[in-house]
Amino acid sequence: MRSYSTTPAVGPILRGVIVSRAVTDNLARASWIRRMFEEGARLKQERGAEKVFDFTLGNPEIEPPPAVLAAARRVLDSPEPHRHAYMPNAGHVAVRAAVAKRLRAATGLPYTAGHVLMTVGAGAALNTVLKALLDPGDEVLTVAPFFAEYVFYAENHGGRLVVVPPKADLTPDVGKLEAAITPRTRAILVNSPNNPSGVIYPASAFVEIEAMLARAARPIVLVSDEPYRALVFDDVVVPEVPPLVTRSIVATSWSKSLAIPGERIGYLALSPRMPEAAELFEACTFTSRVLGFVNAPALWQWVVAEVGDQVIDVAPYREKRDLMYEGLTRIGYQCVKPQGAFYVFPRTPIDDDVAFVRLLAEEGVLTVPGSGFGMPGHIRISLTVERETVVRGLPGFERAFRKARGGG
Amino acid sequence: MRSYSTTPAVGPILRGVIVSRAVTDNLARASWIRRMFEEGARLKQERGAEKVFDFTLGNPEIEPPPAVLAAARRVLDSPEPHRHAYMPNAGHVAVRAAVAKRLRAATGLPYTAGHVLMTVGAGAALNTVLKALLDPGDEVLTVAPFFAEYVFYAENHGGRLVVVPPKADLTPDVGKLEAAITPRTRAILVNSPNNPSGVIYPASAFVEIEAMLARAARPIVLVSDEPYRALVFDDVVVPEVPPLVTRSIVATSWSKSLAIPGERIGYLALSPRMPEAAELFEACTFTSRVLGFVNAPALWQWVVAEVGDQVIDVAPYREKRDLMYEGLTRIGYQCVKPQGAFYVFPRTPIDDDVAFVRLLAEEGVLTVPGSGFGMPGHIRISLTVERETVVRGLPGFERAFRKARGGG
Repeated sequence: MRSYSTTPAVGPILRGVIVSRAVTDNLARASWIRRMFEEGARLKQERGAEKVFDFTLGNPEIEPPPAVLAAARRVLDSPEPHRHAYMPNAGHVAVRAAVAKRLRAATGLPYTAGHVLMTVGAGAALNTVLKALLDPGDEVLTVAPFFAEYVFYAENHGGRLVVVPPKADLTPDVGKLEAAITPRTRAILVNSPNNPSGVIYPASAFVEIEAMLARAARPIVLVSDEPYRALVFDDVVVPEVPPLVTRSIVATSWSKSLAIPGERIGYLALSPRMPEAAELFEACTFTSRVLGFVNAPALWQWVVAEVGDQVIDVAPYREKRDLMYEGLTRIGYQCVKPQGAFYVFPRTPIDDDVAFVRLLAEEGVLTVPGSGFGMPGHIRISLTVERETVVRGLPGFERAFRKARGGG
Repeated sequence: MRSYSTTPAVGPILRGVIVSRAVTDNLARASWIRRMFEEGARLKQERGAEKVFDFTLGNPEIEPPPAVLAAARRVLDSPEPHRHAYMPNAGHVAVRAAVAKRLRAATGLPYTAGHVLMTVGAGAALNTVLKALLDPGDEVLTVAPFFAEYVFYAENHGGRLVVVPPKADLTPDVGKLEAAITPRTRAILVNSPNNPSGVIYPASAFVEIEAMLARAARPIVLVSDEPYRALVFDDVVVPEVPPLVTRSIVATSWSKSLAIPGERIGYLALSPRMPEAAELFEACTFTSRVLGFVNAPALWQWVVAEVGDQVIDVAPYREKRDLMYEGLTRIGYQCVKPQGAFYVFPRTPIDDDVAFVRLLAEEGVLTVPGSGFGMPGHIRISLTVERETVVRGLPGFERAFRKARGGG
């Protein structure tokens, strides 16, 4: 996931002399995550890092494609003035036009620079649009399992994340989504290819969502968080959402497709089919600015305009996915086969996923409990590791499985 | 200013089908700024851009020092892996250690990497710390004139900005600050060298603030927003705040000192003297992440670690400051002489600064009314223009002055 697992930035219960009550409470709620990280760190110290197999981090271990670095060098060498200056807050018009052109080709919809807002990564894009949409008490629906930061992204702007269980295949259960709509529902936030499950939502789910939104008493916006769109296997096609859902907004970044997550470059694209696109674009340009994002990093804007359609080689991820998925199912784990992203999200052999993560840790294998993604009874395994780590980690998955089943 | 004037991102009154009421209201409140931009754009179209002298933008017109671009090239050429990957949310430890070393040298205080959080510019730094400090209804004091975005930065996190008038020399009136403290006051936010006035707050002001905070019933944090620290003239010294104020936090960026405002790199430094530094650092690491800032752009972190103590040549700004200040006072404008930043903030010859900005526009001179900075009866003139623009713009300032005085 974008930052969650890279940051054990959650602490002891701080009863705020200085820190706000809201943040103090959030840190306290998240303190179990910190304990897990501390246990993992202790394990590495005790046993030696080479004997601990860490599948917790969603941080691409690969380097950006050479074309990306070459494009960045060209920006630095450019004789054009003002390459590093402020620009219109929504981003350079030429860059937004380049993104719009790709969106037109992908969707057939008449995107222009006026629908595209460059952002400091997808996290910024989501905060920008949620602040534009939400008043205190408003609700955002999402489908479990979901990227854990969504809880905070909604709360940041006075909103509340409402989590709806998925179907057995971890795709949206639109009947349950519809049942969860209230007069306060302003947005539905989905993530496909999904972190943590690697599942790709089918076009049919979006067709059903469109029909559901047409029945809603007031406009509800579908926000599609798509940073893993380019990371897919098996020739599977990730459906384009805007042709299927009238009021839709795509939030994404190049963090995964170009392996530059530290550089913070992404965008927000409002569907040209949305009747309120112009006013929402103006609102997002404002919220992006006042949240402090101001504009997305200039150098990387020029880079993605030029080479943003490049994609890292996904073959190593597919190979690791195959190794892990086949290894786990052979052991007896139940698992929906991930078709994209770089995660595997099996069921745990016991209901208590946090306890099972501890069992795995005893075997030298670090994972993240599904509870952190709104889906207890599962664990997230990240494949941003060496192939060798997958191979050498699997016996630990097997020993923990047997122990949990009482056979250990 | 950081983005305000570069973004006419404020619109007609939108009565939200989609956009939140809060954002709709903010856009409506700010609609006069949009009208000014529209008038300016129309003026340029009618008269030709070369006959309109635009002093509204706070966007450095100069290029980064060559050493900065060279350092960026070295990052791209580096054989080290993971140069563009995620990192600890607070930023690369080595980068934070480099910043801490400079802070130790400047202040004599024992800064470490554990006091420094790299941010996506100063706007991100301020949002990060205000979210960590504020609960709904909490108050942030600031001194007029102030950077207009502060209103939103406080409101983003449920807070309220309380504006306190300055002394005649536009430095803090600490008596008035103290009178404005309530049980809800959590922070004092100051900006020196100041945007829009160019005034540098003296050490004595911070000594008085320290004494005042010692008398306060509960801890209040001083947040010192210092993006213009390196842009000073006349061998004046900008006092270091942390040695003077126990509970102090510096927020800043390299946008102005390295002329890279579009690249979004800055930091937050918590004073080692602050008893709550550790818990507040943890809280800020969390708020930075959940606001979507995640981490500051990686490439620019490495750059500032290496060449962050470079400063653009301030001589051209001093020359333009001299030309403008002397020109205005010769005409009859009253003005505190700016000692830093790149603004001049004279009094208007009539009380209604918005009306006077219109008079100036009729003479082909575009400025920003002081009302936008909590200080009516003034205008802000930005010097991020060619020297020639200052020379050719002054006659327009003179004609408007005469007209306003009834002599036109």
